[in-house]
This record gives sequence, C-alpha cells and structure tokens, in this order.
Amino acid sequence: MPLTPEQQQEIAAARAAAHPTRRATVPALEEILYEAIPVLDHGFIRVIDYMGDDGAIVQAARVSYGRGTRRVSEDRGLINYLMRHRHTTPFEMCEIKYHVKLPIFVARQWIRHRTANVNEYSARYSILDKEFYIPAPQHLAAQATSNRQGRGDVLEGDAARRVLDLLRDDAERAYAGYSEMLNEDEQGAPRDPSWPGLARELARMNLSLNFYTQWYWKTDLHNLLNFLSLRADPHAQYEIRAYADAMLDTVARWVPLAHAAFNEYRLHATTLSATAIAVVRRMLAGEAVDQASSGLSAREWRELMAVLGRG
Amino acid sequence: MPLTPEQQQEIAAARAAAHPTRRATVPALEEILYEAIPVLDHGFIRVIDYMGDDGAIVQAARVSYGRGTRRVSEDRGLINYLMRHRHTTPFEMCEIKYHVKLPIFVARQWIRHRTANVNEYSARYSILDKEFYIPAPQHLAAQATSNRQGRGDVLEGDAARRVLDLLRDDAERAYAGYSEMLNEDEQGAPRDPSWPGLARELARMNLSLNFYTQWYWKTDLHNLLNFLSLRADPHAQYEIRAYADAMLDTVARWVPLAHAAFNEYRLHATTLSATAIAVVRRMLAGEAVDQASSGLSAREWRELMAVLGRG
Amino acid sequence: MPLTPEQQQEIAAARAAAHPTRRATVPALEEILYEAIPVLDHGFIRVIDYMGDDGAIVQAARVSYGRGTRRVSEDRGLINYLMRHRHTTPFEMCEIKYHVKLPIFVARQWIRHRTANVNEYSARYSILDKEFYIPAPQHLAAQATSNRQGRGDVLEGDAARRVLDLLRDDAERAYAGYSEMLNEDEQGAPRDPSWPGLARELARMNLSLNFYTQWYWKTDLHNLLNFLSLRADPHAQYEIRAYADAMLDTVARWVPLAHAAFNEYRLHATTLSATAIAVVRRMLAGEAVDQASSGLSAREWRELMAVLGRG
Amino acid sequence: MPLTPEQQQEIAAARAAAHPTRRATVPALEEILYEAIPVLDHGFIRVIDYMGDDGAIVQAARVSYGRGTRRVSEDRGLINYLMRHRHTTPFEMCEIKYHVKLPIFVARQWIRHRTANVNEYSARYSILDKEFYIPAPQHLAAQATSNRQGRGDVLEGDAARRVLDLLRDDAERAYAGYSEMLNEDEQGAPRDPSWPGLARELARMNLSLNFYTQWYWKTDLHNLLNFLSLRADPHAQYEIRAYADAMLDTVARWVPLAHAAFNEYRLHATTLSATAIAVVRRMLAGEAVDQASSGLSAREWRELMAVLGRG
Repeated sequence: MPLTPEQQQEIAAARAAAHPTRRATVPALEEILYEAIPVLDHGFIRVIDYMGDDGAIVQAARVSYGRGTRRVSEDRGLINYLMRHRHTTPFEMCEIKYHVKLPIFVARQWIRHRTANVNEYSARYSILDKEFYIPAPQHLAAQATSNRQGRGDVLEGDAARRVLDLLRDDAERAYAGYSEMLNEDEQGAPRDPSWPGLARELARMNLSLNFYTQWYWKTDLHNLLNFLSLRADPHAQYEIRAYADAMLDTVARWVPLAHAAFNEYRLHATTLSATAIAVVRRMLAGEAVDQASSGLSAREWRELMAVLGRG
Repeated sequence: MPLTPEQQQEIAAARAAAHPTRRATVPALEEILYEAIPVLDHGFIRVIDYMGDDGAIVQAARVSYGRGTRRVSEDRGLINYLMRHRHTTPFEMCEIKYHVKLPIFVARQWIRHRTANVNEYSARYSILDKEFYIPAPQHLAAQATSNRQGRGDVLEGDAARRVLDLLRDDAERAYAGYSEMLNEDEQGAPRDPSWPGLARELARMNLSLNFYTQWYWKTDLHNLLNFLSLRADPHAQYEIRAYADAMLDTVARWVPLAHAAFNEYRLHATTLSATAIAVVRRMLAGEAVDQASSGLSAREWRELMAVLGRG
Repeated sequence: MPLTPEQQQEIAAARAAAHPTRRATVPALEEILYEAIPVLDHGFIRVIDYMGDDGAIVQAARVSYGRGTRRVSEDRGLINYLMRHRHTTPFEMCEIKYHVKLPIFVARQWIRHRTANVNEYSARYSILDKEFYIPAPQHLAAQATSNRQGRGDVLEGDAARRVLDLLRDDAERAYAGYSEMLNEDEQGAPRDPSWPGLARELARMNLSLNFYTQWYWKTDLHNLLNFLSLRADPHAQYEIRAYADAMLDTVARWVPLAHAAFNEYRLHATTLSATAIAVVRRMLAGEAVDQASSGLSAREWRELMAVLGRG
Repeated sequence: MPLTPEQQQEIAAARAAAHPTRRATVPALEEILYEAIPVLDHGFIRVIDYMGDDGAIVQAARVSYGRGTRRVSEDRGLINYLMRHRHTTPFEMCEIKYHVKLPIFVARQWIRHRTANVNEYSARYSILDKEFYIPAPQHLAAQATSNRQGRGDVLEGDAARRVLDLLRDDAERAYAGYSEMLNEDEQGAPRDPSWPGLARELARMNLSLNFYTQWYWKTDLHNLLNFLSLRADPHAQYEIRAYADAMLDTVARWVPLAHAAFNEYRLHATTLSATAIAVVRRMLAGEAVDQASSGLSAREWRELMAVLGRG
C-alpha cells in the first residue's frame, strides 16, 4: 500500500484539521481518522467520517431530548438487551464511512451487501493503477477436498512457485495489454499517434479480478455488524475476512459497548436448532445420546459436538 | 410545542458542548443543532446529528484521499452536473438525523419512505402525552370538488366552528378514555385500586390519528431530497408539507450547493412527456397548436399550458 | 369480516378463473387463492398472487437452466443447508402478495418492516368503513407488572365490561364525528347542503387507531420469514401475531420444505451467547453451575435454564 | 450463446409444462418463457417467472377485492396517471425474474442497482466456462475526446485488428493460467497428480473482466423501469444497453400499458430545469434568447436546443 507523496499529504492535511462541534465525538476513533490501515498487499481501509457513538444508540432507543445516556452500567445493560433481543433499529442510528482499496474479486463479494452507499472509482472514466493482489505464501491454499467451497493445505515448494509466477505473469501481461490498448502516455497524449486509443470503458475488460479498485463505502452500525458477522466468520474467504478484521478494530474504537455486545451475542454466539436443543436437554438429563438417536444429520451432529466441546 | 423545563435543559446542555473534531463540520448547521424548530401546533423538528457537507459529495464523486474539494465554482459545477444527470450515489454520502414530533396521521404518510432509519416512541411501553393536532383556521379546508384527493375553500363561520369543536371534543374524549383504561396516576400507581389497568399496548388504540407521536429519523441526503421533492410539493397534504418546508431550510444551511442544485434541477424543474416536447417544438416553429391537435389529454394540455405560462 | 355480496362475487369470479401457465404452480396454495382468511373480529388476509415454490429456491441456488430440482430428499437437504448457514438469497427468489385488512395500530407495527411493497387504501381519497377492532374477552389483558411492554392477567367482570364499553362508545363517537365532518350521504351528496364537508384528508384524523384499514402487501420469502420470526414470536403483541400465525399457514401450503426448515432452524431454534455456551459445556462436564458463577445476568440465567428445561 | 444439448433439453422440458392456475397470466410473455434471448456474443436473458400484469397495477392502486380492472381505456388512463405523477408503489406489485448470462464488467455495473434479488453462479464453488466477450467490430470504439466517459469513432484496420488480437490472446492466456492452477481434468481428478490444485476461490482471480458469469435476477416493475431508464439510455455503456434493450422487449410483452406509459413519460420524456423553462417561456413569447442571456451554461444551452429541435 505505498501511498504517493501527494496522497500522504492530502491525508496529513485532513488529519491536521480541528473544528469545534456540538455533535457526539469519539476521541479513540478521531485518533485514527483518515489514516490508511493496511490490508493485504496493496489494500487499505480508512475511516473517513462517522455519526454517533454508544450514547446515540441509547438516545434513539429512548427517543430522548438530550444525550439520553445515564450511568455506563445502565447504558451497557440497555445495549446488551437491544442486541440480545434483536431490537436492531437503535443501532441504525450510528453511521460510518470508509475509503477502501481492495481487489476486484473481493469487491464483488462485498457489494452483495446491499444496504450501504457506495461510490467506486470509475474505470470508464479514469485509468486504473498497476496494482494487483498476489497472496502471501501462507495464504496460497489448495482446494479443500472435504468442502467444495473452501481451502485445504497451504501449497509449498514448486507448486507454490508455479502458481505465484503464473498469477504475477498473467497480471503483468493483462496490464500491458490494457496500457497498449489505452495508448496514452503519462500526460494523456497518444503514445502511438497513428491511432486514438481504445475507449477506457472497453479497455478495462482486459484486467483480471485481482487488480485493485477503490471505493467510498458508508453504512449504519446495524448493517455493518451484519456484514461483519458474515465476513469476519471463519467460513468467509480469507481475503475479505482480512478487511472485516480490520474494520472490527475500528468498531471497537468507535462503539466499545456495542462491540462487546456484538461479540457476546452474535459473533461468538451459536444458534441451536430445535432438535439440537432437545439433544442438549437429554444429555443434561444424563441420557447417552449418539448421532443415530439424536435426530440430527451426521454433519449437524459433528458441529453440535464441536460447539459443546466434545468434538 | 411547549417543551418541559427538563427538556429545555437537556437541549441546552447538548448545545453547550463543544468538542474538537477532524471531521467535516458545517457552522451554519451547528448553529441550530438540537434546537426545536416549531411545526404545526405542537410539533417540531430538531437536527440531532449530521455527517458530511457539500465537500463530502465532491470527495466521494472523486474517490479522493483528501477533502477532494477545489475551487467553489468547480465544486458547484460538479454538484450541478451530478444532480442533472441523476448521479445519485455521491449525495448518499451525506447523512442527517432528526428528532421529529408529529401527528400520527402525518407519521403514517412519512413512514412510507422506506430508505431511512427510524426509532419511534413506543406506546406499547410508555404513555403518550395529551397533545393532539387541531388545524389553524386558515388550514381548515373543505373537500375539493375537482379533485378527490385535495382541499377546496377554507371553511368559515359556523361550519368552521362546528368542525373545530368536534375535533377538539372527540380528541379530549379519546384521551379521557385512554387515561381511564390505563388507570395510572402520575406516580404510576392505580388510580382505582380495584383493578390493574388495561395493557398499554391495548389502551393506545383508543387514541385518534391527530395525537402526536415522535421519532428519531435518519436518512442520507439523496433519499432526503427524494422525500422533499414529494412532500414539499404543492400536491402533498399541507400538514406533511409544513415539516418538509422546515427541513428544506435545514438543508439550505447544511449543503447550500446541493440545495441550490436541487431547487434548479428537481424541485422547480418540470418533466415534459414525449408528446409535450413535440408540442413545444411545433409551437416554437410557429405552428398554432390546440389541445385537439396536440395528442395530449385535456388535463395534460392544461398542465402544459400552465408550465409554459399560457395558463 | 362480513364481506359485501359484491366483494364475495369479485372473489368468486377471480377464483373461477383457470389459465394454463408454464410457471411453477403450487396446487395447495392455489386452493385458497383469493379466499379471505379471517383474523381478529373484522380483519383478514388473502393470498393474491405468488411466484415460485420450493423448487425455485433450489433452482436459484444452483443457477439452473431448468427446474433445478432433483430428488425430494436432495432438495430438502439443500434447503435445510441454506437455512442453517444463512444463505438467504435463494429464499428471496420466491415472492408472495397478500391483501390484508387490519387495525391501524397493527398496520403501524407492520409497516416497520421496510423490505416490502405496499399499497394502502387511501383515506385522503376515499372514505373508511365503520369497522373497528374490539378485543375478544380472552384478549383483554391488564398491563403486565413484571414487563413494561407486555400483558398480564385477563380482565374480568366489571373491569372488562367497563373497558369494552369505553372502547366501543369512543369508536362509535369517533366515527360519528368523522361522518358529520365529511357531510356526505351514500350518493356522495352533502347531507347538510349548507356547507361542503371537510376535506377527507383532514376528517380522517378523528378516527382512532383501532379502525380497520387495508392494503396490498408483497414481499419475498426471505423477508417474509424475517417478519414471521419477529411477529409469530410470543413477545409480539397478540393482535399482529394473529396475522403472523395465519400467514405461517399459507407458507406451509406454499413452500413446505422451507417452512419446515424455518421451524427447525429459526422459529424454534435458540441462540446461546458466548457465555451461555461456556455454561452448558461446564454443566455437561458435570460441574454444578449457579447464576453467581455463570457470568450471566439473573435474567439471562433464567432464560437459559428455561431453554435447557431446568426452569 | 451456444447452449449445451443438456441445457437445451432442460429449457425444452420447462417450456413443455402447462399447469392450470388462478393467477393472472400473460400469454405474450408465456410464449417466450424460459427461452434464451441472445445478447452480445455469448450472453442471454431468459424470463424465468413473473407475477402480475397491467391489471395487477390497477388492482393494487384500487386495493380491490377482485381483479380491479375496468375498461381498457380506463386502465390505460389510470396507469398513465400513476406514471406521470410518480405514484410508484402500484408498479411494485408486479415482479419478474430473469436468468442472465453476462460479462463480469457488465455485472459490476448492473449490481449497483440494489433493489433486486440476486443469485450469482459461484466461482468459489464451481469452475467458470471458457467464454469471454469480444466486441463486434462495429462496437470497437476509440476513447471519446469530448467526453472522458464515452466512446468516439469506431476503430478500423490495423488498430482494430491489434486490439481484437490482444483481447483474445490475453483472455485465452488468462483462462489457460486459471485451468493450470485448478489442475482438474473433466472428471475433477488432478491433471498433474503431484499437487492438489489451487483453491477455486483463489484461482478465479486470474480471469479477466470480460469473462462471462451468470445469475438469477429478480426485481419489481418499478425498480426494473428505473434500471431501464438508466441503462437503456444513450449515455449507458453499449454492452449493458444491449441487455436493457432486450429486457425492454420483454416488458412490452408483459405489461404493454405500463410499457407505453414508461416510454411516454420517462424514457422519451425530458426534464427541464427551472431556468430552462424560463427560457422556453421567453422564446414562446417571441423573445430572441441566446446562451449569454439564458442563464444556462454552454452545455445546458446546447442540450436544451437539441431537445427543442434547434440543435
């Protein structure tokens, strides 16, 4: 994520500003405002703006005239209650805006979360930089054999080298083709003056899905937590999880009470099916239950035993 | 809109705060932050929080590393361009939160705008105050005869008096019934100790639609402008238009460039149908066009003539 | 829910139609199509249209060229898998449309579910019928003492009579005032020709929240199940739960496999917090755990014990 | 768009079905149901299912007990009225589902329309076919010089040949790399048994944006018309416009009255700004107006003159 000096200067200028405001502010989040937090080899997330804090959740739940907050223990109790009982609307009263740089294949997963506002850098209008994602060696995984949608062991030796060379060479070549078709030099003049260069909106189709794009992405806290509960989950693809993990850290700075409630009641919580609850009851009553007598499928049984620490 | 001393104090306390922030701030909006702006006889809007300013629209459109703004004339030109060409996503990058007190029948129209976040005061959980809307004499209109969904002349004399008395008496009686069924005194103890009082969630059904409710309502600038284009329109019912007009004033403070573009390209713009454009072309070519030869219905013809100042 | 003869005739005519279609059809749902299923004292739900069936979920999950379904056991397995793992998008591929008649206070809760399409009968434009909700004696509950948002014991004897009389009398009076202000006879002519009648959009504010309104409401299966998981829940107010229960029956007819998966993995499932899971593990390991040592609040402990059948 | 024999058979089987239904049916749309309508070189759209017809718009607007339709002329008048006055909710009562095969760069534009349901073919789970988009010669355009986001003249001769060769060679090579990294033969066994093949979720990043993906896409008529008003517009990129045009044809079959209203009041309508209307009024009053005295920018003036046929 090498920012250009000009970009660094713009960020520094934004960080240098200090205006007085009557709005709720969160010093721990202000501290990192605008800073580029690195993700993957060339990506980042930057918090650009935010609205509200833990108090704003309480304030909305109470439809208050003032801040609405009372003692910290009462606010925590209320936020835990709201999270447990799926009273989601007060969490929608906080909003956050990120600037994200991410590979296109990650952007394609991310955009599936519809309840957000997005402005993406336009490759119809502008030219993409030559930056593409190459997995670090420890993330270069084989296809899982047990699960069609997952990763197996990490590739090593020749196999790893071959894959990395291929990814790099093909991306280099894709970008070379893109540049040749655009036919523009640094000043925007044709490199080869005998023809005008292909339309940008067409040339971009030559780039591969590991090229980086960027966008502004804004959402409310409730929908952000939905996003994170799916994308910070071990079943999510590693590359988007890396972004979700970095965002979770910003949530901890922003709304520590909501963050703790999210960990307790959602991210590290487990949903047991009607049949699974019946199994747990029987086990607690001292009955020896096995998969055959449980009413659960082999897979559900395995997952339940893992949850119960009897894996 | 008589606020209680306690409410006034809470608002004053919130207004007294001043925190430093690195975020974009808008002094003209800060000036009125948290203040209750009166609407109708007991209602208000209060701006509770906001995210972004005119610069944030530009910043998102450019996917900038810094503020993204250039000279004011360039920013104005870009914002006008975005508004004209329906590039709506940059306007979604600004967010605003209101606290609104409004009659239930207005709330029922308002809530139809789905792209917003809402927390309403719960009459399942709490007791509503005795505050109901009675139209001012100049808004007490007869049913329109030309238009089934509209107002005609203002009622006067006996008719007006009779209607106002009826509205007031029935609302008083509805509240008396509500109170009697709740059977609670000021301290929450039963007034008549021989029975426990009806569940709040049931008792509320006795209230009429002119009683006031309140909510926190938060939306982005694009969806706010959609709301205002429908609700600040002369076809909207007067009572919701009163709220929309008050909100338009807050938009003028908040994002003056976007507000001007909205007025020019949406609120005071007109959409001409394919046939209407053909009519205008023929008229400009010197042809005498009348309704019969226009291809327009009588109503469309009348509306077009009004737009063209030939009403 | 006394339908007029004209309404009954319209429904019968719609039910009499039989067109051939290449689309997926569900005979069990066709059987009740258009029929008014009674809810509360004057309300109903009617299934007006639907798109898709259990097979459409499978088809979309597989992005198939044909129907996509295989053996029933495979389809059931896939649908269970999707429901368990929150792969929600295939469930969005089924759509259903209801005509609902419901008290306004129920409509106000219902409309909070934003991901749906709605057309409500307009009291700006038309005149509402004299139909209001009066709870059946067994639903006339006192305010709960333990829970500010709930019902306690059923009212009986004098208290019940007084409440029912109040509700009925006030609703009668509200409608009388509404009619008087409208000043229209059955033919729409002024009853009292000395004045024109109040605008409908104003007169309606005299009606109380137990009057019935009606709307067309359309949503996809995923969002319908979200609605039902909240509104068919014991914590929901009885009156909206009555609608949710009637809708659940239509879901069972429409998509029996999805309905069963919903019961197993959502409606009758339980989410255990991180701390609650740790408690269950300790109990299964033979440890004696009490609330003090559990890390749970008194309320959470009570709820966990209830789930585990140790209440 | 060469369908495999198996796919053709699945489509034929679906088309052969004929079930009786009480629902609204549209024979003109049934006629092409499931058929693959070719778009671009390998893409298609297929109508998979639909709910409602022109009558359903009328029915919802009237909140009818029966079909709600009257004489065709009355229905047409009502639908025109709803379209002109932006009463959008009745149009949301019709729903349509497409199966679409499209290049990834088109999918990236398309997905920005958030109010739709989508299931995309998963390249985490499955292997993409070797099918990529190569523009037809007449669509191989140079970058526009006047407009950074548009196309200029069509490329010809050597330039065209060079670009087409580049696009084809790079896509071939990208797919070869993808295949080599997957290391699977037709039966899913490793081609090179000395290593297990890269995880599919990683290998896919080597593909370029002109490769085809496919999805099920479902939306309501109102949101579909929004999509089409932006994507069937001359400012849209040709490749997505090709899809929009094919979809417009299906709308004409499905809801001919709504389609006609859409053409008249939206697709071929023009919005004039407040200032532009003032200009037209002055011109109609016989005044000679030029850009300088118009209050319009040079660009707005040019566009207005084009609309008025004075280009």
